[in-house]
Amino acid sequence: MGDRSRTTTVARAASLDVVPRDTVGQGQALSLCQEGGLLFAGRHLLIELWEAEHLTSEPDIRRILQDAVAACRATLLSIHLHVFSPTHGISGVAVLGESHMSIHTWPEHAYAAVDIFMCGSLDPRKAVPVLKAGFRPKRIQFMEVKRGVMDADDVVC
Amino acid sequence: MGDRSRTTTVARAASLDVVPRDTVGQGQALSLCQEGGLLFAGRHLLIELWEAEHLTSEPDIRRILQDAVAACRATLLSIHLHVFSPTHGISGVAVLGESHMSIHTWPEHAYAAVDIFMCGSLDPRKAVPVLKAGFRPKRIQFMEVKRGVMDADDVVC
Repeated sequence: MGDRSRTTTVARAASLDVVPRDTVGQGQALSLCQEGGLLFAGRHLLIELWEAEHLTSEPDIRRILQDAVAACRATLLSIHLHVFSPTHGISGVAVLGESHMSIHTWPEHAYAAVDIFMCGSLDPRKAVPVLKAGFRPKRIQFMEVKRGVMDADDVVC
Repeated sequence: MGDRSRTTTVARAASLDVVPRDTVGQGQALSLCQEGGLLFAGRHLLIELWEAEHLTSEPDIRRILQDAVAACRATLLSIHLHVFSPTHGISGVAVLGESHMSIHTWPEHAYAAVDIFMCGSLDPRKAVPVLKAGFRPKRIQFMEVKRGVMDADDVVC
């Protein structure tokens, strides 16, 4: 794959809501989430931005992704952006210590698709105000999916 | 961001079901999908793999991602893999000309979360047999979300 593929070794980041950053990777159980009696791997948020702005600006999208990651108190490992032609749509993926955040823009339809998956108890919904301020969508929709919902019998608490 | 961020300029890949690869990027309308009277940006598949194998092998996961992308006839732009400690879980993201594919593994729970977003008329479901063969899950669940569903009034067909 040459320079198109990279592998790094890092600690899976535990939730900053539970433990301080310097204990990252010290306990695998911290990469799960509990809510309402459910034990699950993480939250996956699918966000639709309509009548949005700044969908062709690579510097803007890079900054908004960085700010969204920071708002969630997540650990940014790397960002990869691709600019498409002829529409100047952009695909951006941020790889996180707590999973990933992506955006794909269709500027010709003033539309962007965002997904944010965060394991542990980090809350991807904290990215929404950053996305709203950055892309100024007139309409926004989101759907939250709990990923990896486990039976209580599967896990020793 | 130094070497942690990269930007490339490529053509958004049109669906190979519609046009040959050498016309990639020639028509932005090809990056939308039509099905059952709906016009939408793409399909987003969320896949849960349970009691799965090969969740700690970076070479295996890289190969399975590559094979899954090929099975969908998608355009692989780059793959980024991160190995976590101490569980040896892996996060992998493949950036595609048609959006992205990701996997996050929790080997301590024999669980992996996959998401595949493909714009245009490429079918992410074609990746499922590759995932089944590669990770040998005893249980698999998936959920398909149509992203960017547009009103007919919004688009000139």
